[in-house]
Amino acid sequence: MKIAVLGTGAVGRAHAARLTGLGHEVTMGTRNVVATMARTGPDAMGTAPFATWIEAHPSISLAGFTAAAARADLLINATAGHTTLGTLTAIGSGNLSGKVLLDTATPNDFTTPVAVPMPSPWGTPSPILSPAVTDSLAEQIQRSFPETRVVKAVNTLAAHLMADPAALEDGDHTVFVSGDDTAAKQQVHELLTAYGWRDVIDLGGLTTARATEMIQPLYLALTGVLGHEHFNLKVVR
Amino acid sequence: MKIAVLGTGAVGRAHAARLTGLGHEVTMGTRNVVATMARTGPDAMGTAPFATWIEAHPSISLAGFTAAAARADLLINATAGHTTLGTLTAIGSGNLSGKVLLDTATPNDFTTPVAVPMPSPWGTPSPILSPAVTDSLAEQIQRSFPETRVVKAVNTLAAHLMADPAALEDGDHTVFVSGDDTAAKQQVHELLTAYGWRDVIDLGGLTTARATEMIQPLYLALTGVLGHEHFNLKVVR
Repeated sequence: MKIAVLGTGAVGRAHAARLTGLGHEVTMGTRNVVATMARTGPDAMGTAPFATWIEAHPSISLAGFTAAAARADLLINATAGHTTLGTLTAIGSGNLSGKVLLDTATPNDFTTPVAVPMPSPWGTPSPILSPAVTDSLAEQIQRSFPETRVVKAVNTLAAHLMADPAALEDGDHTVFVSGDDTAAKQQVHELLTAYGWRDVIDLGGLTTARATEMIQPLYLALTGVLGHEHFNLKVVR
Repeated sequence: MKIAVLGTGAVGRAHAARLTGLGHEVTMGTRNVVATMARTGPDAMGTAPFATWIEAHPSISLAGFTAAAARADLLINATAGHTTLGTLTAIGSGNLSGKVLLDTATPNDFTTPVAVPMPSPWGTPSPILSPAVTDSLAEQIQRSFPETRVVKAVNTLAAHLMADPAALEDGDHTVFVSGDDTAAKQQVHELLTAYGWRDVIDLGGLTTARATEMIQPLYLALTGVLGHEHFNLKVVR
């Protein structure tokens, strides 16, 4: 399948490398190809330069967001959550219409001051989740692009485990799926199965993306106390 | 130890019965003793009448909230989250000062209309979490009663498992603790160990109660799709 991975950070790289290994034709999208390739130092999250990484993955293409999305059958949103709507708007609904969009992002807001912030393993400022409780990033995307088939998944765990669950305890942990389009959810479920996921829980419609996006504070707190991101939740039942 | 369990619903009963079995002297607190004992039908959550239940637990006392709190060394908040601050205010800071309060409640708001609610296994109206993201019920309690030693715990799972984790997969799942008072957290940790908890993760200060209170939407979504509440999260690492 032709897949566009929007975003060149750790999340995008994990999906792109895994999808390529599974035989898919992957184009990674970025805002500015020249700038992405020119960067020589680690990014804000400590991720190594993209140019170094893609040299080791020669079958993966890099293109501008719009070109990457235009040629793809399925899209993976691996952009930072607070930039997602802007990126998709720049791509344009014509390039997104009818396509499945697997949304992996978390709407972290780093700009709204909080009187007493939760400690963040990323340092200051601590992010807060926005939207939350009565809305979610996934629903915002769906409302903005009603002809795109939005599915929320793998947003509750570390980038390196999203596409390779077997790297932790033989994959004995859980991933959640939310979406309003049953066929799109089925397609994402198949992708997750190919990644190695065995415990995929379909939570229902896209409103349930609120529930998984709201895992982020627990994820951050656990990252802080465990001192690493090599963990995930399992629904024991 | 003399323990007050505030609230006579499923959460209060689970703790009270278990604590009594562990040799503690338990008084359950309720707003109106006569009304609680007079109820003959199931409550809003489908819980059987209290009078029937306490007949099978003759060593547990029932008292008004204030009397129950006044005689206790440790308190467990098992009230509905949207009633907690009112209940504690009625009890009065003098009866709460210096005491450990294990807060198990979730601040479910059933009154604020939501344009598109998440489905609720409890039927309509769907609750939303309030406060959330930048504040939590546990912090509200702590701010209102600065001399009370608030510890948030066991708020992420079903009542019947809070005090009896071994009932699910031999207790191989996780419980979280948040609080600003280290000695109080230690006391709660010991209580949890007595309950049978083996994987207790101390998330840090009370701001991290936001993280565990924000599990509630996932808990509700899972209850809906699994069709039962006999589950819990395990942090696989």
